[in-house]
Amino acid sequence: MSGSAMPAVGPQAGIVAGRPALADPGTSFRSREPATARQRDAVFADAQLEEADAAASAAAEAFFRAQTDESERRPALLLHALAVVLEGRRSELVRVAAAETALTEVRLNSELSRTTGQLELLASEADSRSGRPVEEDAAGAEGFAPALALGHVPLGPVAVFGASNFPFAFGVLGGDTASALAAGCPVIAKGHPAHPETSQLLGEIATAVVADTGWPAGWFSLLHGRGAPIGQALVRADGIAAVAFTGSTRGGTALATVAAERSVPIPVYAELGGINALYLLPDAAGNATAADSAFVAGLTQSLTGGSGQFCTKPGLLVVVDDDAARRTVDHLATALAAVASPPLLTPGIKAALVSGQERLREHEDVEVLRGGPSASDALDHPVSSFVARVSSQALRADPSIADELFGPALVVVMCENLDDLIDVTGSIPAGLTATIHAAPGDATTSARLLRRLRLRAGRVLFGGFPTGVRVGRATTHGGPYPATNAPSTTSVGVRAIDRFLRPVTYQDLPDTLRDRALSWT
Amino acid sequence: MSGSAMPAVGPQAGIVAGRPALADPGTSFRSREPATARQRDAVFADAQLEEADAAASAAAEAFFRAQTDESERRPALLLHALAVVLEGRRSELVRVAAAETALTEVRLNSELSRTTGQLELLASEADSRSGRPVEEDAAGAEGFAPALALGHVPLGPVAVFGASNFPFAFGVLGGDTASALAAGCPVIAKGHPAHPETSQLLGEIATAVVADTGWPAGWFSLLHGRGAPIGQALVRADGIAAVAFTGSTRGGTALATVAAERSVPIPVYAELGGINALYLLPDAAGNATAADSAFVAGLTQSLTGGSGQFCTKPGLLVVVDDDAARRTVDHLATALAAVASPPLLTPGIKAALVSGQERLREHEDVEVLRGGPSASDALDHPVSSFVARVSSQALRADPSIADELFGPALVVVMCENLDDLIDVTGSIPAGLTATIHAAPGDATTSARLLRRLRLRAGRVLFGGFPTGVRVGRATTHGGPYPATNAPSTTSVGVRAIDRFLRPVTYQDLPDTLRDRALSWT
Repeated sequence: MSGSAMPAVGPQAGIVAGRPALADPGTSFRSREPATARQRDAVFADAQLEEADAAASAAAEAFFRAQTDESERRPALLLHALAVVLEGRRSELVRVAAAETALTEVRLNSELSRTTGQLELLASEADSRSGRPVEEDAAGAEGFAPALALGHVPLGPVAVFGASNFPFAFGVLGGDTASALAAGCPVIAKGHPAHPETSQLLGEIATAVVADTGWPAGWFSLLHGRGAPIGQALVRADGIAAVAFTGSTRGGTALATVAAERSVPIPVYAELGGINALYLLPDAAGNATAADSAFVAGLTQSLTGGSGQFCTKPGLLVVVDDDAARRTVDHLATALAAVASPPLLTPGIKAALVSGQERLREHEDVEVLRGGPSASDALDHPVSSFVARVSSQALRADPSIADELFGPALVVVMCENLDDLIDVTGSIPAGLTATIHAAPGDATTSARLLRRLRLRAGRVLFGGFPTGVRVGRATTHGGPYPATNAPSTTSVGVRAIDRFLRPVTYQDLPDTLRDRALSWT
Repeated sequence: MSGSAMPAVGPQAGIVAGRPALADPGTSFRSREPATARQRDAVFADAQLEEADAAASAAAEAFFRAQTDESERRPALLLHALAVVLEGRRSELVRVAAAETALTEVRLNSELSRTTGQLELLASEADSRSGRPVEEDAAGAEGFAPALALGHVPLGPVAVFGASNFPFAFGVLGGDTASALAAGCPVIAKGHPAHPETSQLLGEIATAVVADTGWPAGWFSLLHGRGAPIGQALVRADGIAAVAFTGSTRGGTALATVAAERSVPIPVYAELGGINALYLLPDAAGNATAADSAFVAGLTQSLTGGSGQFCTKPGLLVVVDDDAARRTVDHLATALAAVASPPLLTPGIKAALVSGQERLREHEDVEVLRGGPSASDALDHPVSSFVARVSSQALRADPSIADELFGPALVVVMCENLDDLIDVTGSIPAGLTATIHAAPGDATTSARLLRRLRLRAGRVLFGGFPTGVRVGRATTHGGPYPATNAPSTTSVGVRAIDRFLRPVTYQDLPDTLRDRALSWT
C-alpha cells in the first residue's frame, strides 16, 4: 500500500499502539469489489484475541498517563490534524472506498467532507467546553451550602464499531471516533470487514497523527476481524470504558449483553436502525400529483441514493387512500423505474433485501407495484427499486410488513381517513426519523401527528426527506429503541461527545486547582 | 392508619392507579421497629405479579393520553402540590418513619425538608426548561442546512426502587420519583420492605395529589413486596420505559440484567455504592492533632450520623504514617467512643456489618483500634463504631480490605510517604465521593491527587466531609461503577431529570407548532 508507514508483511490484522497487530493464523481474507465481484489484492486477517487485551491495556495506560502527567494535550489539535491529513489523502481514500463499497465518488467525496467537517466541529466544541464549568452553585450564607462546580472527565478508552454503509462518516474516523477523541478518550476501532482496506488506510492515518501530535501510542488502535469473537473480546477487555456501535440490532444488542455481563459493566451506545415513516397528508398529496412534482423527485432521490443503504432511508409512506395519493404513488413508481441503483455493499445485505422483498411479494395482503427479484438481481448486479402497497388494516394485523428493508425499497400504507392515519402510528415501529408533509389544509392533522411521532423518532421533519442529516449543535441521531439502545443520546452532532464524558462535581474547589479540575485532559 | 384515604381491609399490597393492589395470598408481613424489635400493627403483603403489568399498563395509557390530548398539565404543579402536602403531613410522616427506621426525628425532619426542597427545585427546573429549545441551528443559506430545533420528550413510565436508608429523600417520593415526574413521566414505585408503612403513607399522598391536580390515575402506583419477583416483574412489564434504583450492587445489577433481556431493552439508572475515601495530607494532619480539632469532630460526626448508613459515609481514611497522623487517629478513636450510634435499619444490614468487621478482625494485616462485635452487639442493639488500621502494602496485597462496611466503620490506610499515598489511589475502588484535606504545605500533592481522584469519584471535596449532599444545579451523585452503572448521570440535583428525557430534533419546525413540539407534556 503506497503512502503507508506500515510494512505489509503477511496479512494485515490491524495496528496496536503503533505496531502491526498479530494475525490469527488461517483467517486471512480480502475485500471484494461489489461492482466487479473481484477480490482486491490486499490481504487481511482477524487479529488474535489477545490483541484486544493488548490494545485495551495500552489505551488504559495512555489514558492514565494523559490524565495525570504534566503535559498539556488538546484533543482539538488531534482532531484538526486528522481533518487536515484526511483532506490531503482525499483522492486515495475515495478511490479505495469506491472500489470496496461501489458507492459513487460523488457520494464518497461528499461523505469525506462531512467527516472532516465533523472533526472540525467537534474540535471546536471540545475547545470551548473543556476547562469551563458546566454549572456552578455559589457557596450559600446559610445552612449546608458548599460551593459546587460541575465539570466533566473523559470516561476512558472507547471501543468503536463502525458501519458498512458510511466508510468515512461512520467508519474508523467517523462520528463515534471523533466524539470519543474530542472528549479526551483513546479509541480502539474495529475495522469493518466490508471495507478493510479503507479501514486500514484510516487507521494508519490515525496512528501517524497520534504520534505527530504528541499523544501516547496507545491512544489509537485498529483491529480487523470478520467474526464476532474479536469484537466481543474487545468489549470484555479490562480498561475499556465504553462502546460505540453502528449497525444491526442483533449485533448491537449482542455487544450490549457482553458489556452488561462484565464484572465492571460499561455503557454501550448502539445506533441500530428502525423504520423511517413519511406521512403525506391529503392537502400536501394534492400538491404532489404531477409526474415531476418536487415530492416525487425528492422521494425518488431519498429512496435510491446510496442504493437506499441509509439508516434514515424512508421505508414507509403513509397516506390517506384518495385519488391524489394514488396518482402520486403511481408517478413515484414510474420515476423510480428511471433510476439505476448501484450494487449493494455486501452479498449479505443483498440477500436480506431480496428475502424481505420475497416475503412481501408472497404476502396475500401486499400488492407489489414495482420491482422485486428478477433474473438480473443475481448477486453482484444492481437491485431494482421496490414499491409495495398495503392497507392500514393489513399492517395492524401483521406489523412485520413494516420490517426494515435495507436498500431501495418502500412500502406504502393506505389509510381509510385521517383518524385511521393518526391511529396507525401506533402500529409502526420507532425509528431515527419521522417526516410530515403537510400543506395548509393539513394543519390540524399535522399538530396531532407531531405529538405521536415525537414519541417514536429522534428527529421529526416538516417537509424534506430524512436521508440528509445536518451535523450541528441541535442534531439528534437516535430515538426510541431500536433507533438506539441509549435513548438519551445522539451519535451525530456536537452532543455526541457527551456519551464519553462523566460529570464530576468539585466541592469548595480552590482557585489554584480550578483549571486542572475543569480541563477534560 | 388514621388520615388515610384507603380502607385498610386485609393486608396492604400497594396502590394501582388509585385502587388497592391485590395481595399475593400467604405473603403478609409487618414492619419491625429497629429500636424495640417490635412488629408494628399494620399488615402488608407482596402485590400479585399481575399487578406489575396492571400498573405499567395504566401508566403507559396515562402517559399516551397526557402526551396526545389537548389538556395542559404542568409537572411543576404536581411537584409543588406534593411538597405542600408532605409539609402538611410532616409530623405523621416523621413519627412513622422514625418508628420504622430508628433514625432520629431531627434527622428525619431535616431529610423531609430536603425532600420537599428537592420537589420545589425540580418543579422550577421543569418549568424553566419545558417549552424552550435546548439548542437551535438556524437554516443556512448554502448547502444542506435545514433549521433544527432540539427539544426533549419524556421517556415514559418509570419504575422507582428506593433505598432503605433515606425513607424520604430516596424513598417513594424521593429524588428519583421527583425527577421522573418533573420530566413528565408516570411513576410506579416499589415500596421498601424495611419501611412499608412510610412507603404506603407516601403512596397515598401521591395518589391523592395526582387526582387533585388532574393527572390520569395511572400516573402513580405503588407496589409492596419483600422478594425480587415483584420488582423483576415490574422491570419486565410492557410499557415501562426506564428504571431508577438506589441500593446494593447485587440488586441493581440484577435488575439491569432483566432490563437488558427485554425484547425492548430499557435503561436502568442504578446508584449502588462504593467506597468514600478521605485523604488527610501531612500538613493538614499537623493541624488536626488536637483532641478537639475540627477534623476529629467532623469525621466523628460524618462516620456516626444515621449510624453510618449513608452511601457517602467515609469508609477509608488515607494518611502518610507520621506522628501527626497517628495522634489524629488516636483522638478519633477516643472521640468515637463517646458517641452512641442508634440501631441499624435492618437485621440484614447489621449482620453484614458484623461479618465485615469480623473479617477485618481476623485479618493478620489489620489492626483493630476500636469497636467490633461484642456481647452488646446482638441484633436489635446499637453497634459500636469501628476503626481499623492497615498499611498501604497490605491493602495492595488484599484490596478486599477496602470493601464497603455499611455502618459506623472506618479503615485507616497508613502510607509510607507522599508517592505511596498517590500510588495507593489505584488500589482503592471507585465511589460516589473522594475528599482531600490539605493545608498550604500540601499544595503539590493536592494537585496530583485531584487528577487521580476525579477518575474514581463523582464528587471531589476539598475539605469538609462527604455525608452532606447539596441538592443544586451543579450536583453530581454518581461516579464510576460501582457508584452507578450509568456513569454519565446523576441521581441528585437538577440534572437528575435528564435521565428521563429523550432528545428530539425538529427539522424545519413551523412556528405554529413550536410550543406543541417543545413542551415536555
